[in-house]
Amino acid sequence: MSTTGKVIRCRAAILWKPGVPFSIEEVEVAPPKAKEVRIKIVATGLCGSEIKMLENKTSYLHYPVILGHEAAGIVESVGEGVSTVKTGDKVITLFLPQCGECASCLNPVDYLCTERKQSKSGLMSGGTSRFTCKGKPVYHFANTSTFSEYTVIKEISVAKIDAAAPLEKVCLVSCGFSTGYGAAINTAKVTPGSTCAVFGLGGVGLSVIMGCKAAGAARIIGVDINKDKFEKAKKLGATECINPQDLKKPIQEVLFDLTGAGVEFCFEVIGNPETVEAALASCHESHGVCVIVGLLTDVQLNISGSLFLSGRSLKGTVFGGWKSRESTSKLVSDYMAKKINLDPLITHTLNLDKINEAVELMKTGKCIRCILLP
Amino acid sequence: MSTTGKVIRCRAAILWKPGVPFSIEEVEVAPPKAKEVRIKIVATGLCGSEIKMLENKTSYLHYPVILGHEAAGIVESVGEGVSTVKTGDKVITLFLPQCGECASCLNPVDYLCTERKQSKSGLMSGGTSRFTCKGKPVYHFANTSTFSEYTVIKEISVAKIDAAAPLEKVCLVSCGFSTGYGAAINTAKVTPGSTCAVFGLGGVGLSVIMGCKAAGAARIIGVDINKDKFEKAKKLGATECINPQDLKKPIQEVLFDLTGAGVEFCFEVIGNPETVEAALASCHESHGVCVIVGLLTDVQLNISGSLFLSGRSLKGTVFGGWKSRESTSKLVSDYMAKKINLDPLITHTLNLDKINEAVELMKTGKCIRCILLP
Ligand SMILES: NC(=O)c1ccc[n+]([C@@H]2O[C@H](COP(=O)([O-])OP(=O)(O)OC[C@H]3O[C@@H](n4cnc5c(N)ncnc54)[C@H](O)[C@@H]3O)[C@@H](O)[C@H]2O)c1
Ligand SMILES: NC(=O)c1ccc[n+]([C@@H]2O[C@H](COP(=O)([O-])OP(=O)(O)OC[C@H]3O[C@@H](n4cnc5c(N)ncnc54)[C@H](O)[C@@H]3O)[C@@H](O)[C@H]2O)c1
Ligand SMILES: [Zn+2]
Ligand SMILES: [Zn+2]
Ligand SMILES: [Zn+2]
Ligand SMILES: [Zn+2]
Repeated sequence: MSTTGKVIRCRAAILWKPGVPFSIEEVEVAPPKAKEVRIKIVATGLCGSEIKMLENKTSYLHYPVILGHEAAGIVESVGEGVSTVKTGDKVITLFLPQCGECASCLNPVDYLCTERKQSKSGLMSGGTSRFTCKGKPVYHFANTSTFSEYTVIKEISVAKIDAAAPLEKVCLVSCGFSTGYGAAINTAKVTPGSTCAVFGLGGVGLSVIMGCKAAGAARIIGVDINKDKFEKAKKLGATECINPQDLKKPIQEVLFDLTGAGVEFCFEVIGNPETVEAALASCHESHGVCVIVGLLTDVQLNISGSLFLSGRSLKGTVFGGWKSRESTSKLVSDYMAKKINLDPLITHTLNLDKINEAVELMKTGKCIRCILLP
Repeated sequence: MSTTGKVIRCRAAILWKPGVPFSIEEVEVAPPKAKEVRIKIVATGLCGSEIKMLENKTSYLHYPVILGHEAAGIVESVGEGVSTVKTGDKVITLFLPQCGECASCLNPVDYLCTERKQSKSGLMSGGTSRFTCKGKPVYHFANTSTFSEYTVIKEISVAKIDAAAPLEKVCLVSCGFSTGYGAAINTAKVTPGSTCAVFGLGGVGLSVIMGCKAAGAARIIGVDINKDKFEKAKKLGATECINPQDLKKPIQEVLFDLTGAGVEFCFEVIGNPETVEAALASCHESHGVCVIVGLLTDVQLNISGSLFLSGRSLKGTVFGGWKSRESTSKLVSDYMAKKINLDPLITHTLNLDKINEAVELMKTGKCIRCILLP
């Protein structure tokens, strides 16, 4: 029996208010409206950004909410006017849309589609939600809301991918992998033979390492306060790893000692104002580039002005600088062609019901990525 | 009678301690040691950086000190082993040296000669000073110390220039003009047709405007709280000027309203942490570049982390990104060939004895550059 046009009842992980665990609830998912698609989520990662949001109780969220943005699934049905995907297509979800029509989308060197901003309201077009639970509307998150068996997303926020792609792997193209890899390749434009440092060796930081390696960096220094992350970092391309807690000097001084003149490309992949300053200070004074990948919503950066009495740059990045729809389809193909590898990032797989266990695994540094299966 | 090899007694402006005015004193200037040159200063500008240092009582200075770094003069004598300039040569002084041998000097895309750091001690090689006053050693400043009839500078901190150059004009190549012009051309790499904003329309900010114009910017928006600066800014290339104090909204919002999506290149040419944040926030979210030209020693920047949840960059610059010795000789030739114009920057000329009046003119915003004649 087809579900098209009908409300679907299914399970989802709901966050009712700041500071509480997720609750698995039965929700109603309305059919997609015009230019929207309803997706059966097959696999979703739990990204460091969600952990940040749970910890910081950010003003960015509206409650109750369904989080989740790093997923892959299958189109269940499409709304009016949807032309680029159809029922049965494999897709990945995109927190950064690509509308194809805004100034950023039309600019070959830009990628920050201005349509991304609508997601701040937590509502779909028309100012309504497609989710209800216990009779109450539930807010969307990041254009995606993937911690659910089904979700409704705008057409411009899904990318059609290879029909043979294993969704429980390529879901990482939806955020963690692409963000880190692209931060090195697109945002920093790491150069062959260069010296890089990566602060924070979670799923995103390890993907930065893979990007630095692919770009031909000669030296890639991993930095983390959790030494359990070092083995995998080295396997993926780090030439050495440092725990700042083992040092007598500040990490930036140690990186200067190690490299002579500072690193050429430095990545902050934690989302901590102090490590942003340390990462910037670790950069080569003349031409060092520091890319902030970590999430810094509701946070003030406090940086010594003297760090800019030189030629250093500090740069933001979102989703690794990719034009989202077109690039993620290609990245999935690259995975299928074994040009990139996502498998080492996946350390755990759990049923969506166990999402609070996955949160614990992330918070305690025991996993890289835990894939949740709804 | 030749002065070579002898101590010269002459007048200089001495700053005895933080917070007091300059005193004109008789000083003794020792002969140049190896790789040093003694210069008769013919004209010296008073730069906004000196005003900053007088106001902030920066920890960077050692007292008593002879300030001054924006000058042109004539080589009086040279020390042992000096081969690139000789007695009688016209030169400009360089607070940023170009040793030609360090990693930065050898790198075609770098410019921050590592020899600049020695100037922090306020002493010349051997850890001694070439100035004494009333029997006490007086510290050097910024490799230059030009508020004196004579000064001693390292060979790598002077650039030989066209023998026909008018020193009371081209002294501005020594800092203000080159810093601003180069910040646009070299550091920001302003692109043809782009939209720029310049915060702070002093001598350096006006030079940024000239650089933006030379680079082909389509729109150059001047921003200053002193509207008396607007007429000259427009003459030199600003397409419009705004006084933030006349606005009901923050300047960054007004710049977004005016431009639709923010400016592509923004320059902070004041040296104020608040305007740095406003300048960054005025930039295009995807690809806007904000260059900090203003001096930020002993200052903490406080920047909302959310400004980096996008593709913006924040970048420092020193002396406009020029390789100092080779570029300044060329810039002087460009002035002689009327390719660049320094004359509009010069609004006042005073005897060095009147330096405290020049400070007042700068502090009250009544001058762009006041040239001091020792
Ligand atoms: N810009 C974007 O588009 C984007 C996209 C995805 C994720 N992110 C952000 O990237 C960051 C990393 O995400 P993740 O999924 O890899 O998270 P994660 O929690 O798996 O990894 C963070 C790592 O940082 C380490 N760490 C924590 N504090 C540290 C310190 N003081 N010094 C050194 N290391 C420290 C942890 O031990 C951990 O290994 C998060 O801030 C996330 O919000 C940004
Ligand atoms: N990076 C370098 O290598 C370098 C070299 C030279 C000068 N500088 C710095 O450049 C800056 C400018 O130098 P200058 O000689 O042009 O100084 P200046 O004093 O002549 O000009 C500063 C201008 O900023 C304006 N201003 C002050 N507060 C403002 C505010 N809140 N909003 C808008 N405008 C404001 C003033 O009215 C003035 O017109 C100084 O900080 C100086 O130290 C840096
Ligand atoms: Zn993510
Ligand atoms: Zn778009
Ligand atoms: Zn100056
Ligand atoms: Zn050098």
